[in-house]
Amino acid sequence: MKALAMLGIGNIGWIEKERPACGPLDAIVRPIALAPCTSDVHTVWEGAIGDRYDLILGHEGVGEIVEIGELVKAFKPGDRVIIPAITPDWNSLEAQAGFGQHSNGMLGGWKFSNIKDGVFAEFIHVNDADGNLALLPDSISPEAGAMLSDMMPTGFLGAEMANIQFGDKVCVIGIGPVGLMAVRGAALKGASDIFAVGSRPNCVAIAREYGATDIINYKDGPILDQVFAKTDDLGVDRVIIAGGNVDTFDEAVKMVKPGGVVSNVNYLGEGDYIKIPRAEWGVGMGHKTITGGLMMGGRLRVEKLAAMVVAGRVDPNKLITHHFEGFDKAEEALLLMKDKPADLIKPVVSISW
Amino acid sequence: MKALAMLGIGNIGWIEKERPACGPLDAIVRPIALAPCTSDVHTVWEGAIGDRYDLILGHEGVGEIVEIGELVKAFKPGDRVIIPAITPDWNSLEAQAGFGQHSNGMLGGWKFSNIKDGVFAEFIHVNDADGNLALLPDSISPEAGAMLSDMMPTGFLGAEMANIQFGDKVCVIGIGPVGLMAVRGAALKGASDIFAVGSRPNCVAIAREYGATDIINYKDGPILDQVFAKTDDLGVDRVIIAGGNVDTFDEAVKMVKPGGVVSNVNYLGEGDYIKIPRAEWGVGMGHKTITGGLMMGGRLRVEKLAAMVVAGRVDPNKLITHHFEGFDKAEEALLLMKDKPADLIKPVVSISW
Amino acid sequence: MKALAMLGIGNIGWIEKERPACGPLDAIVRPIALAPCTSDVHTVWEGAIGDRYDLILGHEGVGEIVEIGELVKAFKPGDRVIIPAITPDWNSLEAQAGFGQHSNGMLGGWKFSNIKDGVFAEFIHVNDADGNLALLPDSISPEAGAMLSDMMPTGFLGAEMANIQFGDKVCVIGIGPVGLMAVRGAALKGASDIFAVGSRPNCVAIAREYGATDIINYKDGPILDQVFAKTDDLGVDRVIIAGGNVDTFDEAVKMVKPGGVVSNVNYLGEGDYIKIPRAEWGVGMGHKTITGGLMMGGRLRVEKLAAMVVAGRVDPNKLITHHFEGFDKAEEALLLMKDKPADLIKPVVSISW
Amino acid sequence: MKALAMLGIGNIGWIEKERPACGPLDAIVRPIALAPCTSDVHTVWEGAIGDRYDLILGHEGVGEIVEIGELVKAFKPGDRVIIPAITPDWNSLEAQAGFGQHSNGMLGGWKFSNIKDGVFAEFIHVNDADGNLALLPDSISPEAGAMLSDMMPTGFLGAEMANIQFGDKVCVIGIGPVGLMAVRGAALKGASDIFAVGSRPNCVAIAREYGATDIINYKDGPILDQVFAKTDDLGVDRVIIAGGNVDTFDEAVKMVKPGGVVSNVNYLGEGDYIKIPRAEWGVGMGHKTITGGLMMGGRLRVEKLAAMVVAGRVDPNKLITHHFEGFDKAEEALLLMKDKPADLIKPVVSISW
Repeated sequence: MKALAMLGIGNIGWIEKERPACGPLDAIVRPIALAPCTSDVHTVWEGAIGDRYDLILGHEGVGEIVEIGELVKAFKPGDRVIIPAITPDWNSLEAQAGFGQHSNGMLGGWKFSNIKDGVFAEFIHVNDADGNLALLPDSISPEAGAMLSDMMPTGFLGAEMANIQFGDKVCVIGIGPVGLMAVRGAALKGASDIFAVGSRPNCVAIAREYGATDIINYKDGPILDQVFAKTDDLGVDRVIIAGGNVDTFDEAVKMVKPGGVVSNVNYLGEGDYIKIPRAEWGVGMGHKTITGGLMMGGRLRVEKLAAMVVAGRVDPNKLITHHFEGFDKAEEALLLMKDKPADLIKPVVSISW
Repeated sequence: MKALAMLGIGNIGWIEKERPACGPLDAIVRPIALAPCTSDVHTVWEGAIGDRYDLILGHEGVGEIVEIGELVKAFKPGDRVIIPAITPDWNSLEAQAGFGQHSNGMLGGWKFSNIKDGVFAEFIHVNDADGNLALLPDSISPEAGAMLSDMMPTGFLGAEMANIQFGDKVCVIGIGPVGLMAVRGAALKGASDIFAVGSRPNCVAIAREYGATDIINYKDGPILDQVFAKTDDLGVDRVIIAGGNVDTFDEAVKMVKPGGVVSNVNYLGEGDYIKIPRAEWGVGMGHKTITGGLMMGGRLRVEKLAAMVVAGRVDPNKLITHHFEGFDKAEEALLLMKDKPADLIKPVVSISW
Repeated sequence: MKALAMLGIGNIGWIEKERPACGPLDAIVRPIALAPCTSDVHTVWEGAIGDRYDLILGHEGVGEIVEIGELVKAFKPGDRVIIPAITPDWNSLEAQAGFGQHSNGMLGGWKFSNIKDGVFAEFIHVNDADGNLALLPDSISPEAGAMLSDMMPTGFLGAEMANIQFGDKVCVIGIGPVGLMAVRGAALKGASDIFAVGSRPNCVAIAREYGATDIINYKDGPILDQVFAKTDDLGVDRVIIAGGNVDTFDEAVKMVKPGGVVSNVNYLGEGDYIKIPRAEWGVGMGHKTITGGLMMGGRLRVEKLAAMVVAGRVDPNKLITHHFEGFDKAEEALLLMKDKPADLIKPVVSISW
Repeated sequence: MKALAMLGIGNIGWIEKERPACGPLDAIVRPIALAPCTSDVHTVWEGAIGDRYDLILGHEGVGEIVEIGELVKAFKPGDRVIIPAITPDWNSLEAQAGFGQHSNGMLGGWKFSNIKDGVFAEFIHVNDADGNLALLPDSISPEAGAMLSDMMPTGFLGAEMANIQFGDKVCVIGIGPVGLMAVRGAALKGASDIFAVGSRPNCVAIAREYGATDIINYKDGPILDQVFAKTDDLGVDRVIIAGGNVDTFDEAVKMVKPGGVVSNVNYLGEGDYIKIPRAEWGVGMGHKTITGGLMMGGRLRVEKLAAMVVAGRVDPNKLITHHFEGFDKAEEALLLMKDKPADLIKPVVSISW
């Protein structure tokens, strides 16, 4: 079969690979919508997870099941499914503890385009189909469904880990596709004021549509000053970090109130240490909790998020700025993600076979 | 001063009473918007809390501060404030445990028109002004603000106690003003499907505006059958009870999934026992949690809810179906609440002095 | 193979059955210690789960693995393992939601001697061996290990669901083996006073050893009076129900403070409705949460409890009052459980092959 | 009155000050047992909170009430009370949010020897007596009671913030008096293995008595290596930091599992940034939560901890290694704390008037 692969750090290309075999619990899926992710860019051009050869890329997509293992009960060939980026081993000790994303080791649920081939292939192998695939509802297009592989679960996790309560003031740092979903997630957890930190016009517009009450643009002065000016110098209850780097935590900790939470869903690609300012962290006693996590995967999670889309709570189509037609456009879409033009939020490739 | 009082079970009337004195931590407030509540009806015509004589009624209102105690720091005369129905003793052991509404005894935070005079008076005494009053934001009218004394905090508590997670299916039983707020609260906690149980046309219309995806009308068949039909016979994740009686729990427990919650905010006026069906409660082991609580009061809570209104998350004006002008119309508004015409959700009395 | 089975309501007997087959994820285990449970008595002599024919009884035991499926990774033949009473389907939607005990339906994780053959057999089939078996530590005897199949996980769940905080006063109603473990669990969650309700001398003695500070014996007067007398009429923060019936909730709700929890782990065998007293439940608003659940099963849970035993936090041997030698003594042990002599807490059968 | 005060950074001395006045909510207490704290040493000799002149030192003590304000209800002159180190403003917004220790600003509940005079005085002023004093039970000596002002609430908070579940493996870094209490707290939250990091013989001995299963001594090799060797290279579920500095977090994050918590109760006196290692923090996605907090104060908290002592769950006397008699020995006791001889855990001064 044909697939788009990493050929080594800095190189991608189309390769031929054997169609994956289907184990007793697994499924083989043919893609009908695929989306590249910034993580793919980190993987290939920054070598973030080390060098890899002929590793098929991609972890966001929707497809049609073409084969199932003999122990699979919940799905059948012909079903259209959302493939979560994270596919846990559900009987692992970590999953039993509620952290399937770290099955058998930290980040161990992240298999696609990391420890096994990804989804930019004619045939995609999914481990534990019953546990990990999610039925695509009829009212969600495959392209919108592809936003439920990673963007929506990751952004919404940011809001969940922040432990938002009714009326909390929330700052979302970074409003790319994940940050935008975090804005929507914060609104759907009952935030009052949502301060979205970003500057690109189409991101700003969607942030407002998703529920941001204030836009904080670094061009208007230091972010911290703006946050304090808008909060009577008290700061915010919660911060969601969906962009920036290890230094971003410095500002985040400074702007959050005692009793608050800094919740990170940003992949931190470089730097030795996250910077937590000692004094503003209350000399260790400020009750400013710092957390960060990988999206949950699995059928339940993605089907529940899909139900929210069907119920009209969030429209993931807003994220999609660029459409491609045809499997062979996956390369172009990925290169677009690498080049990040100013009007890009998220590209999607639609595929007919 | 003049006030509308309970004269005994079944009787109300205008009385003259001495203006309350202001202790060192207290405030005296002059009302500018008042709302009667079904609880007032329970109190007077059903004798729900026992007999009372010359007890001033009412616990929902917005007013202007006219006097403060010498230890009050956060407010000053002239401030327009929302008066929460529940005004805890914040240094009590119960408040320190997170349950100020039960200060010094179960329901002990419920003082107005229960253990002290209520708000249907020319002058209203508020205990612990710093802890219990909430500043009315400029963008909220006094009438809308009066919905934050009880309706919004009670309905939103229903959603909170239900512990709603992203994508949960929620059934709200009863869509009077509290139930409608529970619908909105459920949407703002991230529910997907919200099944609103009710039949009155204007309530149904507002339930949809607040986020209900499905209306369940008892005229269309047994409620339980309708819920199971809409959920592939699985039932719902959460139930909020905002109407009915002790028998309502039977249906609620039957429709909720293992791992789910039944959250009650309905005042249960009669019956010896709440009915929890043994078999459907998993013979004691079904992980179907049943809880019920009194709204939190206090400054923080009401100011946070007010911030949600300012941010546009919820519009409490939708609840107000009947307006009155003038303090002396409080009686007419209360009698309207007693008679409950089909088009009534909530009446408000606007007052100028 | 030979096995002790239910032959119909009210009848047990030894039968011959085919040795179970081992699926790819499963294991076959040969028992080395078995314990009968009150649930077996309910099942056979009260017909609590309906009539069954030739259903092998028992769900508590320790054994040696004799065969594993080809996908099993964590165990090998020869390993000595604790068999949890509850063996979830770990990739089910319910397990992903944190409620594996209700896999694919309420109580669906309870398979042994319910929806499949139990452990009183020469060979025991365990579904999902990697997910459900727990290695027996060298320092725990097989007999003590058998207490980790059900008694300790059930009793400790009672303490967990009660959400005990440092310094909480806890009442444990019923001090049979599960209740005794609930006493120990409450002490290990940080309770201060633990009131153990019971009267049998050996149970009382062990309750004290496990951490009970006070014994409440119904022979000394109404339980409720005794609890209030010991708590300045305030009642307790938490109640764990490990005995009694549907009426027990009446007392439990009355003795628990607002903000408290009633946590049930007792199998409720009869009665239409659990009795929740309306007035003392705060007319629906008392913040007295009522919950009840089935023990969690699975490898993680039981291995963590075993680690507590190894660390000396709890000694399950205290529960064992009667020892038998030989597989064929399982019947005698079960009949002893049925007859419940006054000095019985828990019998165990040791087996050599 | 006579008092032991900070005269400027690096200087202490006895001063005469006016006896404090008692406000309507307050109490005046005469000390009967006092204990100096490492924080006093930080304050005076390291200038950790800046320079102060004639600020009375000390925040740990037990005393007898000699005067109460006219609004105080729960106490009367002659009552023997534990004075918590932290005395929140209970009606503040922060306390209503559950963080009274940060009343009106981060660490704002820390008043004694910080923003007002401390307890090393003939007369001690306590704000909000009803909310902040705790009755000393008859069975607790004043000296043991003084351990409940700060040592036990701080150490136990470490265990609480770590969110310890039954069977968790816990590492406690630092076993001075607070760390020792954290060990006991971890045992009383249901930990299985407790690894106590320390080397002083008497601390090690008490750590074992309090529940540590393993001692990790830096003299035996790198701490991290020892922890991984004892946990099959998996690390621990929870880390409580009760010693060290900003670099300690590097090891703590490395040794904690995904899904785990690092809980700090150590006052971090210097360094710009807490060091959180990026890679081992899962490149931002490892679900390793980092938190740190100031002890809760207040009547409820301290009375609940006192009830644990009465119930025999913990014996705070083990902490006391040095006794002094007479108010004028407070200076000697404080200097001992500064000099920290190898056999010191905690000194106490007993006072008769």
